[in-house]
Amino acid sequence: MGNQPARIYFDNAATTSLDPVVLEAMMPYFTEKFGNPSSIYSYGRESRLAIENARKSVAKILHAHPAEIFFTSGGTESSNTAINAAIHDLGCRHIISSPLEHHATLHTVEHLVRKGEVTLSEVKLLPDGHVDLDDLERLLAGSTEKCLVTLMHANNEIGNMLDLHAVGNLCKKYNAIFHSDTVQTVGHFPFDLRNTPVHFITGAGHKFHGPKGVGILYVNENVQIQPYIHGGAQERNMRAGTENLYGIVGFAKALELATEGFEADSNYIKGLKIYMMEQVKQALPDVDFNGDPLGRSLYTVLSVSLPMTGKSEMILFNLDINNICVSGGSACTSGAMQGSHVIAAINNDPNRVTVRFSFSKYNTKEEIDFVVAKLKEMI
Amino acid sequence: MGNQPARIYFDNAATTSLDPVVLEAMMPYFTEKFGNPSSIYSYGRESRLAIENARKSVAKILHAHPAEIFFTSGGTESSNTAINAAIHDLGCRHIISSPLEHHATLHTVEHLVRKGEVTLSEVKLLPDGHVDLDDLERLLAGSTEKCLVTLMHANNEIGNMLDLHAVGNLCKKYNAIFHSDTVQTVGHFPFDLRNTPVHFITGAGHKFHGPKGVGILYVNENVQIQPYIHGGAQERNMRAGTENLYGIVGFAKALELATEGFEADSNYIKGLKIYMMEQVKQALPDVDFNGDPLGRSLYTVLSVSLPMTGKSEMILFNLDINNICVSGGSACTSGAMQGSHVIAAINNDPNRVTVRFSFSKYNTKEEIDFVVAKLKEMI
Repeated sequence: MGNQPARIYFDNAATTSLDPVVLEAMMPYFTEKFGNPSSIYSYGRESRLAIENARKSVAKILHAHPAEIFFTSGGTESSNTAINAAIHDLGCRHIISSPLEHHATLHTVEHLVRKGEVTLSEVKLLPDGHVDLDDLERLLAGSTEKCLVTLMHANNEIGNMLDLHAVGNLCKKYNAIFHSDTVQTVGHFPFDLRNTPVHFITGAGHKFHGPKGVGILYVNENVQIQPYIHGGAQERNMRAGTENLYGIVGFAKALELATEGFEADSNYIKGLKIYMMEQVKQALPDVDFNGDPLGRSLYTVLSVSLPMTGKSEMILFNLDINNICVSGGSACTSGAMQGSHVIAAINNDPNRVTVRFSFSKYNTKEEIDFVVAKLKEMI
Repeated sequence: MGNQPARIYFDNAATTSLDPVVLEAMMPYFTEKFGNPSSIYSYGRESRLAIENARKSVAKILHAHPAEIFFTSGGTESSNTAINAAIHDLGCRHIISSPLEHHATLHTVEHLVRKGEVTLSEVKLLPDGHVDLDDLERLLAGSTEKCLVTLMHANNEIGNMLDLHAVGNLCKKYNAIFHSDTVQTVGHFPFDLRNTPVHFITGAGHKFHGPKGVGILYVNENVQIQPYIHGGAQERNMRAGTENLYGIVGFAKALELATEGFEADSNYIKGLKIYMMEQVKQALPDVDFNGDPLGRSLYTVLSVSLPMTGKSEMILFNLDINNICVSGGSACTSGAMQGSHVIAAINNDPNRVTVRFSFSKYNTKEEIDFVVAKLKEMI
């Protein structure tokens, strides 16, 4: 097992390390190439060109048109923009969502409900945490108003994945708008947006070894929306504010690297996840896994459920002491020191404790061995 | 006059170069310190600490409380947040503004007017482009609704500065909310927010040698508002989304450096502006200056007005060919290839051409000599 490593980082669903190659691509824009992309002189146009090349690259990888890709400050802003646009610009008055959504969706929807602008229906979940598509169709068929369906592509806490095509086709059938929070999947899975019936998807650079503070919003060319942040003419009048030039360049570079490495990296990371499942099952009594870990699931996330004991209650604390970074629920939840709304929605058993392990290409089986041995010691 | 320099950058009101010392302060967060500030383990708490230290530093410099400083993606988002909050959370139904505001204010206000949520009054301007405070008081006194006054601290195109205290005291007298776009002054002038009657001010890192993609919103502790971007609990539930960690660290560092250097830098830059005024007056026939360049004015901005001729019409183009970066109106305006709404509002003379020169501590008199000689050649 060797000596204790300096730090084991198993919280890649919260954020990932910046790839040094991405940083290298960003560096010229921190130094000599600082021109404002909106300036008309050639020095500004160089910055504009960097942004437009980034947009083309992202669009090509996602099989979208460059005109459908907008750079934002991150996944949360992207989802806020999409959901508000569906209500204010596209005439949706009824939102269909699930209790497992990220707070970026959940709290945006709740705010619109509180203002009386929409009604909300929550779709039923199956025992493994997947969305009940029959119930979704019942809700769509029974709605007297135009619907926005907002369902995340992959759950950040338990890893469950939605069938985008199945949901998108239902939305099509009932003339609903479909927004999917794809923050955990852009940069982790191939997308073919030209053949995917979705109106809005989102991405965040820092989830796939790109920079924090930058994201994308894909807006299908068949819908016309207003900006959420008003001001200058940036992003073709769709997102005002001087562009985060380095962030945009870094987002595109990180997505290019993720795409090049997808085959090898995803197999490798999936191997880590399965290895950890096996090792944890052998090492710990009465262990279970939330969601559908071997089915439609992120290869990056393993949500471990342990019986509640005095020892398991202290597990996050003790892992931290050993310099092992893992999450209880999602990072956003744990920051607020509240229980996870996702775990509560799929399994409201107060006698279980959840630990989320999430992996990247930089993790190793040796790290898993070390962590599992520590878990065995602690439990 | 020497040889032609590689590039002369006289567009510092559009954006500034990143100070290498700021980049150095950001670097650890691009490399080893990538933890999510919302994660509860110690590695995440280190990132949180960096953000809270940045907030304390910014608050101390502006003489505000740390709880009044919120980090955003930039000045535009900050103004969108403040203006929407004034309407949706603070009960304002009447906006008083000026035709000289930045598009971040102008277009946000126009959007609210179009939605029928507010009425708009435009305050009169004096011949030198300053706001007519008597007219402002008439508008406030005559309003039957609670007012939001939104007036920028310094105009980005002509440099005119508002008396924040005079306007703030009028707002206080008439129980109005006061928002000021201070994007051109934060990092360029001292602020004492504890003794300034303003509810909201804004800042953007890239205007004072900090990074693009990060800004602040100051919210006076006496007003309670809702977030504009909903989601996770970041920024004490006021601005959701994983924090732009490097950007926030860079913003604070840039503001610290600007504050340390204020005395020397502002005198030096003001010297450049006055020198350029003198040189331009000597070199060019019938030249004039927009705004109030020697009165209440940014020391960074000089807006030159030239008689319209075949040659002056081509001046931006010819300066660009000579690798001299200047702006016609603001960068945001020129990107859209439209005429400046500011110049139109103060002087709708189709027979004048405006060129904005804006300086930083990195500019020199030798650069001014070179540019003035080129202008003389071109006109």
